[in-house]
Amino acid sequence: MAFTTSILVRFGDLDAAGIAYYPNLVNFLHEAFEDFFAGHVGRPYPEVYREGVGFPTVKVEMEFLSPVRYGDRVQVGLTVERVGNSSVQIRYAGSVDGRAVFTARNVAVVVDMKTFRPTPLPAWLRERFEAAMDGE
Amino acid sequence: MAFTTSILVRFGDLDAAGIAYYPNLVNFLHEAFEDFFAGHVGRPYPEVYREGVGFPTVKVEMEFLSPVRYGDRVQVGLTVERVGNSSVQIRYAGSVDGRAVFTARNVAVVVDMKTFRPTPLPAWLRERFEAAMDGE
Amino acid sequence: MAFTTSILVRFGDLDAAGIAYYPNLVNFLHEAFEDFFAGHVGRPYPEVYREGVGFPTVKVEMEFLSPVRYGDRVQVGLTVERVGNSSVQIRYAGSVDGRAVFTARNVAVVVDMKTFRPTPLPAWLRERFEAAMDGE
Amino acid sequence: MAFTTSILVRFGDLDAAGIAYYPNLVNFLHEAFEDFFAGHVGRPYPEVYREGVGFPTVKVEMEFLSPVRYGDRVQVGLTVERVGNSSVQIRYAGSVDGRAVFTARNVAVVVDMKTFRPTPLPAWLRERFEAAMDGE
Repeated sequence: MAFTTSILVRFGDLDAAGIAYYPNLVNFLHEAFEDFFAGHVGRPYPEVYREGVGFPTVKVEMEFLSPVRYGDRVQVGLTVERVGNSSVQIRYAGSVDGRAVFTARNVAVVVDMKTFRPTPLPAWLRERFEAAMDGE
Repeated sequence: MAFTTSILVRFGDLDAAGIAYYPNLVNFLHEAFEDFFAGHVGRPYPEVYREGVGFPTVKVEMEFLSPVRYGDRVQVGLTVERVGNSSVQIRYAGSVDGRAVFTARNVAVVVDMKTFRPTPLPAWLRERFEAAMDGE
Repeated sequence: MAFTTSILVRFGDLDAAGIAYYPNLVNFLHEAFEDFFAGHVGRPYPEVYREGVGFPTVKVEMEFLSPVRYGDRVQVGLTVERVGNSSVQIRYAGSVDGRAVFTARNVAVVVDMKTFRPTPLPAWLRERFEAAMDGE
Repeated sequence: MAFTTSILVRFGDLDAAGIAYYPNLVNFLHEAFEDFFAGHVGRPYPEVYREGVGFPTVKVEMEFLSPVRYGDRVQVGLTVERVGNSSVQIRYAGSVDGRAVFTARNVAVVVDMKTFRPTPLPAWLRERFEAAMDGE
């Protein structure tokens, strides 16, 4: 994957079976997306968001391959699969100590947060997203 | 859809854009699944769960068609698409005042909560799930 | 209590011990506050919020008296204890089948959501909050 | 404070006003408690929890002094105020870039997770908790 981050499973992520509740693992995708900005794009996502560029999800697919437990450090890898004019498609893969725990794909639209309407991905962001595509 | 329930969008469901944060809408799927037990299956899910039958999600796909706002009552329809030996596949469709806001598909495995291993869907549950398939 | 509502404990509210995780019970206070608007104040809180009046919490105290379990319907009673110029203090009491499960007190400031600064509680809201004080 | 950790404010922590929703800041207390185990007690809380010692909260008090925003790194300080036979009282203070954002006090009971009944704090834990009291 083009970028990898690590997310610690907290008590608040667990369900009654003692494993991470799956909507909380969906939230991990967003946390990895945020870390991708800080670690790869070069500017924290909160800054970009405050300046008016948002990435609301329009589609998510996620497979849960193995239980994620309390205290696990999930390595989340991220690869940009497609950069459209005003959308991005990202693939995620989560693992714990080398054991695959989930794979996911997320499609987000780029929006102007003032209008919440699609807007072209700014050139500097496009460059950074494209640099996170496989084969780059 | 075979079964429909209504879920109110709470303040805690919102994100900084003032719309429902998408992992919280994923959680709505589980809430609709719970309501399906109370309203269609005929026994509350918490009872079934406590007796040792769980339905951990192994796959979810969800499309977000239109923003869901604070105070919206999301009508969530649910149809059983497939009942396997120890898995179920369910389609969900959410709408607000007739406007489609999401569609989703969830595949869950039936597990014995003592071992967290797949177990055949009990016959009485199979009958109720099959009664919620389209065309039944 | 001046107003009572009922909140169902969902799977997503649970922790690894199979009981409601306490920050989620703190969230129940806000849900009861929202229901208080719909059921007592006479206008849904989302409407009031969108028109620019918010009630951010500045202080919360909460005691957890007994575990809250999956599928419990928590009866949450609410009494207004104090209505200041631009603040309100509310007492909450939660019970399940007559068994007390929590008590809480919340102090919120009334703010203009455009500026996020304190603003006097509008007269029509003051009247409705005061009508929910004990002894009224 | 005896121990300090840093917690990043994520998109999922925000409310519609664009600040951290207060029940999510209550959850920060638990995350700081977990970090206290890893960073001060000397064993990760998930391990201790799995071996059967839990710390369910029986009381929390929290004051919110200043808004917490997206991307803030909240420094959470923790001091043990009291170690009882089977309970602990902990004070927390949160700040962002030196600006105080919350203070809190949490009382937790020590329980045997098999029975969910109070149990004496194990001696090795008592020693570590006492070492995090002011003036030690």
